[in-house]
Amino acid sequence: MIMYLNGQYVPRESALIPVEDRGFIFGDGIYEGVRAVGGKMFEWAPHAERMDNGLKGLRINFTRAQIDALEAVCERVVQENGLVDGEAFLYLQVSRGAAPRTHHFPPATVLPTVFVSASKLVVPRKMRDEGCSAVTFPDMRWKRRDWKTVNLLGNVLARQSAAEAGAYEAILHEDGIVTEGAATNVFAVVNGEMRTHPLTERILPGVTRKVLMELFADLKVPVREEPIPFAQLFSAEEVFVCGSTTDVTPVVSIDGKTVGKGKPGPMTVQIREAFEARLYQAAGASR
Amino acid sequence: MIMYLNGQYVPRESALIPVEDRGFIFGDGIYEGVRAVGGKMFEWAPHAERMDNGLKGLRINFTRAQIDALEAVCERVVQENGLVDGEAFLYLQVSRGAAPRTHHFPPATVLPTVFVSASKLVVPRKMRDEGCSAVTFPDMRWKRRDWKTVNLLGNVLARQSAAEAGAYEAILHEDGIVTEGAATNVFAVVNGEMRTHPLTERILPGVTRKVLMELFADLKVPVREEPIPFAQLFSAEEVFVCGSTTDVTPVVSIDGKTVGKGKPGPMTVQIREAFEARLYQAAGASR
Repeated sequence: MIMYLNGQYVPRESALIPVEDRGFIFGDGIYEGVRAVGGKMFEWAPHAERMDNGLKGLRINFTRAQIDALEAVCERVVQENGLVDGEAFLYLQVSRGAAPRTHHFPPATVLPTVFVSASKLVVPRKMRDEGCSAVTFPDMRWKRRDWKTVNLLGNVLARQSAAEAGAYEAILHEDGIVTEGAATNVFAVVNGEMRTHPLTERILPGVTRKVLMELFADLKVPVREEPIPFAQLFSAEEVFVCGSTTDVTPVVSIDGKTVGKGKPGPMTVQIREAFEARLYQAAGASR
Repeated sequence: MIMYLNGQYVPRESALIPVEDRGFIFGDGIYEGVRAVGGKMFEWAPHAERMDNGLKGLRINFTRAQIDALEAVCERVVQENGLVDGEAFLYLQVSRGAAPRTHHFPPATVLPTVFVSASKLVVPRKMRDEGCSAVTFPDMRWKRRDWKTVNLLGNVLARQSAAEAGAYEAILHEDGIVTEGAATNVFAVVNGEMRTHPLTERILPGVTRKVLMELFADLKVPVREEPIPFAQLFSAEEVFVCGSTTDVTPVVSIDGKTVGKGKPGPMTVQIREAFEARLYQAAGASR
């Protein structure tokens, strides 16, 4: 496996960073996860914009132009790993760099650490067709979840809880409302109405979520962006989670309780089809 | 500078970790900061106990016996760096190790990454005598602050805000109460009564705080462990912060407003003297 690290394309075993990197010492960095189909990045622009927003939030000196230049880096990493024919998941991370440990920022001469890797993505079609199970977990994360930082312990513990239950995702809740999934956004149909948490500092502004909002508008399906009460999650007619590797994945059981009829509901199937058409059409157009 | 990394004592420039270390990717690790005087660790046992508690909380496979063995590692790192004569700050970190990225835990065959470094500590006596200034900052951190994890962005941003204001520390507040400092615990004298936040998941159980509670008991000074209302912070007669490099440091101004008489108050001076006596006596006894 070939990885990109600070300007070089190196084998995995040579992809080393100083132990004093602030990513390791403080979780002081921003990441992105981007879907590639046929060697091209899907929805690069909103990923770049979100990364820019997070880096600006943390005030890491990495410009929008430097972010934009990572699209070509991603394409090359996909090529180097022989992943052009098919689908891949690109992981990008920019940390504040390596410096002697101080909580406050290091001198401006310290350069950010820039890392990109690619892995083959095999879409689990059966799970998409039949739906997945989820657990619920308290949302333990910090208050700026709109920045895609690597302070991810709340997500790690939630996903571990899902893995141990044999579930795909953990749906997070806080103060009696559903925020999002540990690595996804959550949509639910409550009393016939499609609902999802609004874009606030409490959730990540998902790129797939953004595409779905556009597609819902095209399909003339109204979506109410208002928090879903946690108690109503269990009486929802439909639930699905979405994300850059998850696409649209129906949730048919939560904490062992059946959602709706125990199979993907009609609104979920409709938006999944629209999303996949766009995902693979975009790839077809760019090939 | 010589550092300890995964069983080896190596120069700083050779202290490298895989970029896929979960410390870098998720902030998935626990750290400690220990004070050394005359080559000996001050209050090792409670540091080891806190580290054990955090590692158990995150379920990182690193036993109490392995933690205990790090005391000798710390002593050797101090020696290797010529810091036996004087004071040093030991930094210890154990991450869940390097593995291909999954939110959930990697297989048990993945070994934790273990890192120890030492730096010379020069006590800023003038600041201790005259007191420091502090700013206030919203507490943005996640919900398990009792575990000393490297998910530290809330602390980093707070300390940066202090540094930009020319202040030593940022005092964090949330829901109208003072939690702690960005890298310290906070005590205040309110209406003649010594107060500090109780040991809950909202704050770090400071080792210096623990020693101070013992010393206050010896001195027959009652301490009320109940959150200090944020509004009362500004009318407190005395405020001080404490920690393993901070010891007892009086706070004489907050957000530019004078605390008490603008100089270290009598209860702060008393506990500072008692603490320093114990710190240097312990070192003297072990030399």
